[in-house]
Amino acid sequence: MNKAKLIKRFKEVRDFSLEISSFLSDEDHQIQSMENASPVKWHLAHTTWFFETLILVAFDDSYKLFNAMMNSLYNSYYNSLGKLFPRSKRGLVTKPTLKEIIRYRKYVDEKALAFFEKTPLEGRLKYLLLLGLNHEQQHQELMLTDIKHGLFFNPLYPSLNISAVKVPEEQKPPNRQSSNRQSSGWLSVDEGVYHVGAEPDEDFYYDNEGPKHKVYLNSFKIADQVVTNGEYLAFMEKGGYDDALLWLSEGWDYLKKTKRKHPLYWVKQDNEWHQYTLSGLKKINPSDCLSHVNYYEASAYANWLGCRLPTEAEWEVAAKKTLSGDDPSDLEGNFAEKKTWQPHLEDSFQFFGNAWEWTSSAYSPYPGFKAEAGAVGEYNGKFMCNQYVLKGGSCATPKSHIRASYRNFFSAPSEWQFTSIRLCKVE
Amino acid sequence: MNKAKLIKRFKEVRDFSLEISSFLSDEDHQIQSMENASPVKWHLAHTTWFFETLILVAFDDSYKLFNAMMNSLYNSYYNSLGKLFPRSKRGLVTKPTLKEIIRYRKYVDEKALAFFEKTPLEGRLKYLLLLGLNHEQQHQELMLTDIKHGLFFNPLYPSLNISAVKVPEEQKPPNRQSSNRQSSGWLSVDEGVYHVGAEPDEDFYYDNEGPKHKVYLNSFKIADQVVTNGEYLAFMEKGGYDDALLWLSEGWDYLKKTKRKHPLYWVKQDNEWHQYTLSGLKKINPSDCLSHVNYYEASAYANWLGCRLPTEAEWEVAAKKTLSGDDPSDLEGNFAEKKTWQPHLEDSFQFFGNAWEWTSSAYSPYPGFKAEAGAVGEYNGKFMCNQYVLKGGSCATPKSHIRASYRNFFSAPSEWQFTSIRLCKVE
Amino acid sequence: MNKAKLIKRFKEVRDFSLEISSFLSDEDHQIQSMENASPVKWHLAHTTWFFETLILVAFDDSYKLFNAMMNSLYNSYYNSLGKLFPRSKRGLVTKPTLKEIIRYRKYVDEKALAFFEKTPLEGRLKYLLLLGLNHEQQHQELMLTDIKHGLFFNPLYPSLNISAVKVPEEQKPPNRQSSNRQSSGWLSVDEGVYHVGAEPDEDFYYDNEGPKHKVYLNSFKIADQVVTNGEYLAFMEKGGYDDALLWLSEGWDYLKKTKRKHPLYWVKQDNEWHQYTLSGLKKINPSDCLSHVNYYEASAYANWLGCRLPTEAEWEVAAKKTLSGDDPSDLEGNFAEKKTWQPHLEDSFQFFGNAWEWTSSAYSPYPGFKAEAGAVGEYNGKFMCNQYVLKGGSCATPKSHIRASYRNFFSAPSEWQFTSIRLCKVE
Amino acid sequence: MNKAKLIKRFKEVRDFSLEISSFLSDEDHQIQSMENASPVKWHLAHTTWFFETLILVAFDDSYKLFNAMMNSLYNSYYNSLGKLFPRSKRGLVTKPTLKEIIRYRKYVDEKALAFFEKTPLEGRLKYLLLLGLNHEQQHQELMLTDIKHGLFFNPLYPSLNISAVKVPEEQKPPNRQSSNRQSSGWLSVDEGVYHVGAEPDEDFYYDNEGPKHKVYLNSFKIADQVVTNGEYLAFMEKGGYDDALLWLSEGWDYLKKTKRKHPLYWVKQDNEWHQYTLSGLKKINPSDCLSHVNYYEASAYANWLGCRLPTEAEWEVAAKKTLSGDDPSDLEGNFAEKKTWQPHLEDSFQFFGNAWEWTSSAYSPYPGFKAEAGAVGEYNGKFMCNQYVLKGGSCATPKSHIRASYRNFFSAPSEWQFTSIRLCKVE
Repeated sequence: MNKAKLIKRFKEVRDFSLEISSFLSDEDHQIQSMENASPVKWHLAHTTWFFETLILVAFDDSYKLFNAMMNSLYNSYYNSLGKLFPRSKRGLVTKPTLKEIIRYRKYVDEKALAFFEKTPLEGRLKYLLLLGLNHEQQHQELMLTDIKHGLFFNPLYPSLNISAVKVPEEQKPPNRQSSNRQSSGWLSVDEGVYHVGAEPDEDFYYDNEGPKHKVYLNSFKIADQVVTNGEYLAFMEKGGYDDALLWLSEGWDYLKKTKRKHPLYWVKQDNEWHQYTLSGLKKINPSDCLSHVNYYEASAYANWLGCRLPTEAEWEVAAKKTLSGDDPSDLEGNFAEKKTWQPHLEDSFQFFGNAWEWTSSAYSPYPGFKAEAGAVGEYNGKFMCNQYVLKGGSCATPKSHIRASYRNFFSAPSEWQFTSIRLCKVE
Repeated sequence: MNKAKLIKRFKEVRDFSLEISSFLSDEDHQIQSMENASPVKWHLAHTTWFFETLILVAFDDSYKLFNAMMNSLYNSYYNSLGKLFPRSKRGLVTKPTLKEIIRYRKYVDEKALAFFEKTPLEGRLKYLLLLGLNHEQQHQELMLTDIKHGLFFNPLYPSLNISAVKVPEEQKPPNRQSSNRQSSGWLSVDEGVYHVGAEPDEDFYYDNEGPKHKVYLNSFKIADQVVTNGEYLAFMEKGGYDDALLWLSEGWDYLKKTKRKHPLYWVKQDNEWHQYTLSGLKKINPSDCLSHVNYYEASAYANWLGCRLPTEAEWEVAAKKTLSGDDPSDLEGNFAEKKTWQPHLEDSFQFFGNAWEWTSSAYSPYPGFKAEAGAVGEYNGKFMCNQYVLKGGSCATPKSHIRASYRNFFSAPSEWQFTSIRLCKVE
Repeated sequence: MNKAKLIKRFKEVRDFSLEISSFLSDEDHQIQSMENASPVKWHLAHTTWFFETLILVAFDDSYKLFNAMMNSLYNSYYNSLGKLFPRSKRGLVTKPTLKEIIRYRKYVDEKALAFFEKTPLEGRLKYLLLLGLNHEQQHQELMLTDIKHGLFFNPLYPSLNISAVKVPEEQKPPNRQSSNRQSSGWLSVDEGVYHVGAEPDEDFYYDNEGPKHKVYLNSFKIADQVVTNGEYLAFMEKGGYDDALLWLSEGWDYLKKTKRKHPLYWVKQDNEWHQYTLSGLKKINPSDCLSHVNYYEASAYANWLGCRLPTEAEWEVAAKKTLSGDDPSDLEGNFAEKKTWQPHLEDSFQFFGNAWEWTSSAYSPYPGFKAEAGAVGEYNGKFMCNQYVLKGGSCATPKSHIRASYRNFFSAPSEWQFTSIRLCKVE
Repeated sequence: MNKAKLIKRFKEVRDFSLEISSFLSDEDHQIQSMENASPVKWHLAHTTWFFETLILVAFDDSYKLFNAMMNSLYNSYYNSLGKLFPRSKRGLVTKPTLKEIIRYRKYVDEKALAFFEKTPLEGRLKYLLLLGLNHEQQHQELMLTDIKHGLFFNPLYPSLNISAVKVPEEQKPPNRQSSNRQSSGWLSVDEGVYHVGAEPDEDFYYDNEGPKHKVYLNSFKIADQVVTNGEYLAFMEKGGYDDALLWLSEGWDYLKKTKRKHPLYWVKQDNEWHQYTLSGLKKINPSDCLSHVNYYEASAYANWLGCRLPTEAEWEVAAKKTLSGDDPSDLEGNFAEKKTWQPHLEDSFQFFGNAWEWTSSAYSPYPGFKAEAGAVGEYNGKFMCNQYVLKGGSCATPKSHIRASYRNFFSAPSEWQFTSIRLCKVE
């Protein structure tokens, strides 16, 4: 990527955060509904802090800090940098106000752009700039999922002023029904040695996506579509949540503790299932892509059909097969830029967008993986414990952020992300 | 109180809530730092809901609800009315916005004033109006203590735009030192039968203040002033927090669990003790009234000096003696209207204002107490368990809200209220 | 009490602990079902440690410790003596074995008796000996209630080899029915000043029972019998556990958290209510004295009938009236020596035995109370916080342990003691 | 394995449980120190219940239950069979007594042996018999680790009457020092496709060890010995527990929460490190095999040396290389039968015995794995979530129980098992 393109991308990414912010009131920006979520205001400041600290402070000798306290407030999990403000209290920081944070963004953007004009964007600097942009895109996804989680507690089920997903009345999923799922709609992959991991000549990839390496796969079949709301509803109605034999032991404990019998955001009103979306509470559309299931639910659903979840290598090998040859990075799908911020049914053979797909692979280092030294090295490696890999991106993922080799990761009970299920089976 | 006075009081009380609100940003109104605290926005709406539901809906046939959902959102602990929104999630309700809540207040105030004009304010209606006003004054105190608790988590220790307490450099506490506390500065009360409780002809008192009844008191001595920061600091410096024998068993467990060695809001910076106030972080003034101690701390401090806390009857009998004869309800002191919102030293013999004083009396019904039937009856009686009575009001209490018979109550570990210590001893 | 009597009492009390122990297996002695309970083995050792430390070590220069580690293992809450072994882990200490603890008891008893022979039992020594005996009697009650709690978790509902309470088929409660409870069976006490607290010339009383002092009581009526199982069952069947207005706020939270709808130890089998007793699971006898209710249940039941619980002063004044003149300390009733270890109906006007009676009085110091200095002073004063006073003793209380002035105390949710309800009302 | 050998093995395995039991008092058998541990008494009964239910009840029509309640008490996690007694309360079940459980064992053993005499031990029956024996051996290991954990809470650090590990004064680890660990003592394995998993013709293996399948491995080096106490002590002394960058994020949180700075069972006395063993508290021997580290500690230690943990496939491929050709199942090592029940240094190239070795592999199904239907199928598959695979067995593992393909699994914070570290590195 050349300098002009990098600068253009910088502006686009920084603007998209403000566009998300524009749908929210000052008060919406403030709330934090759980330790795993952060206020949107915090995301806006934290992504800015990243550019300020790792680029401007590090490379631009003439740079003057906007305000020294931003570092302690908007640093995140980087244990190696400064003293940490407790994560669970982020929602209490009302000052600086949103207006001051917007000024902080503007200040850093102006300084950064001025600095980029006079400096070659190469080497370590280029890498950190791309890292900062990808980092901000990750937080754009979290802005959407975190605010969704916070607003859900409001009994009014408030809607953002976005255009809701439009689902034509007559729409039907093409060529599939839960009844024939077992006999059709499967892609086959042959036994053999395959490569997985990021191509070394990509403009950017996270350290956890490399090194590219060989794996041995047995032959398998993988579904050409993700599970729909209607298919999952059948599982619910046939007692899926009551049959201990279908569930991982931890998952069964989770059900006992939470008394849950349906995915997060599903609400029964007037005897009909609805789901909370960023456009408000909507009737379930059976043909739409399921979302907001945790790993336990994904595993139990697969067991119920005598199937299993794919490993991350299986998913990646199959997904790459579906990409048209010319530019594998030009992915089509329901991504964040469409601003539906809600999964819906797309055409078949769609591995990207809509909702992240749980794999059965624990998040662990690829052979030969080395974490970077210092703060940047804290980015990924330290989370390689009790997390599962998810693939493919979601309706809250910016399109330019995702790749076939991308490894997202969340703990098994996580469900506030847009997450879904793709089935796999032997032979 | 006649109609004109009642209406004047209604306007004054309603306006004072908005005046407190005016010191805060939209985001400040939103935060909730613990289950015991509520967002200021919630207080503004909840006090309005009280007038709407218990007066307008109940008495004015022509009244139309502002918005039906206000009832489920801004009802509080009244189990008998409607379904309850979980208290701990109040901070997540961003909609209705602050602007809408201000409109709600205006709507209810207009309707109420129009209704008052055409209706005699007597009997049950008058009682409920006075109850509503006193209820709102209680919440005014909570607005101040709750926002103080929320802002304290901010490492910037933000200040409201109020005029800070002014303490002249040369100020000295009149006629007292911790060294001679034991031999001077004590009021004596003789053994005998005394009356306690509200006078039946008061304009208003809470049901828990009656019936007026007789108690038998042994003779006792009670301090003519509350404990100062400097006196308490001596207790800290002489190892008070490390001597298990001084503490209630529950209090010692509390110290072990919280690792606390000082009152809430005390912060050591550059080796000097400061305290967080609504004017920001300030150096401790040794002559000022101590505040924000819990019952355990109050009890341990009294033990350390071989003293004890007064019972509520002892406090009330002693306090009434200090009131000048003509109008015992015309109290002088550091109350909320002064807008310092921080205790400081006042003249001697001051039993009212500054900070609530812990008594050793568990909160329990007076002989002959009967809770009212229905929702209003939930107001006080149901809390008569594991709470202690506090007397005298604080710098966050509106002056017209407090009486000698007033019984405030909080659980032993509570410390986010302005609370202090007055010593007592046998003969 | 003269020396011969003291020595006789020492032998009797020490033997009774072993008699309780004789009903249990080695394994029964080991278990601890909650932090508030202790293994019976621990009780046997701890009561011995008390005599060893506070009498033999303190007064007998020739005494040699049985084994130094007994102090750290069998000390209890005395923060001022030695380092404390965590209370919740007492059930894990398998060594010393029960046999060694029995040897420890024998050793200390022999040394103590030899010492008593050659020493005048007067003054401080006499006081500590009586304190030690009363202390052991308190632990005898806990041995019974703690093992009952532990065995209850066993789905077999095991029985000790004691003779079960015998209830003749035809037994009927004399002169009372729940229907006429409101109009008969009440004792009246007139308004006036009364004395409460221990007589100064008693052989022994706990420091918390004094000083004897005056209280002013309004006139009241108090039930001549405690509540029966049948009366309480009516409360349950008429929805008492579902009506929030009857319950203290804390009590209602307790019900929500525990999902309880009946007293501890009540078990429904084959559609009939049973209760767990130390003779195994037995059908509820409606005429028997209710037991194992907590303060919340006692308060809600009283509210349901428009009554209230007595204060401790009311209870004591009324109870003393029922005692026959000659020797008020010669109490009749169902006490621990009868070895039924289960309450049952006794004749009317019975204020002692069967089950402790909740009062509405928070446990607090009497006017003029001074805790003793040092470890013995930790005995009572430090628990004067969030506890309620109970009066009258139970079927697990040794007869010689109880007095009208005796103040037992437990926290509101406590229910593993034999606890019951006596109603009170105005006028 | 033929019938005679099977019967012999049945007797040996059943006897070894009783031998472990013989070192303990009745009270030792009763205690349960945490939810993950069970009383030894429970293990003795539960392993018997397994044979009774899955063999005698299922196959022997003439069998009469010893006592029906054994099923509800001694069933374990099998959600599909009967109602479950809560795991955390196992330590409270004093009846049946130990004596009755020994009678239960004897009864079932006699019936089983009589049944085996007259029945061909083949097919499903043979499989379940072997499953039952392996199941009992697993519980033998837990008897040792669970009682060790329980006894550790006793401040006396009690010892079993076993012969303690003897470590000759002059013993030195052969050919290794922490200083040259980086340059010597490594086994090399070449890149390529390898087989892992149990051989299909083994007499017995758990379902989770199959199917045997191919994996692609990059070349790697693996340490020829596990980490010693002395090597780990260097990590501690050089601040390993204080450097956040070395730790997994979850591990760092664990350190903050537990305030741990050393492995479980390490105790500093008189300024010297000791460790609790089943022979009591012993000084650390620097040459001995480290044990009782959790996954976080294993991972941080490896990071500190710039190494990593092996994957389970790497471990298995390397371990198989070290086995002498003739009978790979004839493993040498420090196993449970030696009754040291404490790891110590053995000769080099030792992959089996002493302590389980953490791998970096999350416990997940092998390609083509199918859980069995019904209760037996609950054995392994349902735990494939947030657990890590450990290899090689320990000093508490019976020798005939372990294989190179054996997959043990525990959650990352587990440390009450004998667990240790073997390093791995690239190239």
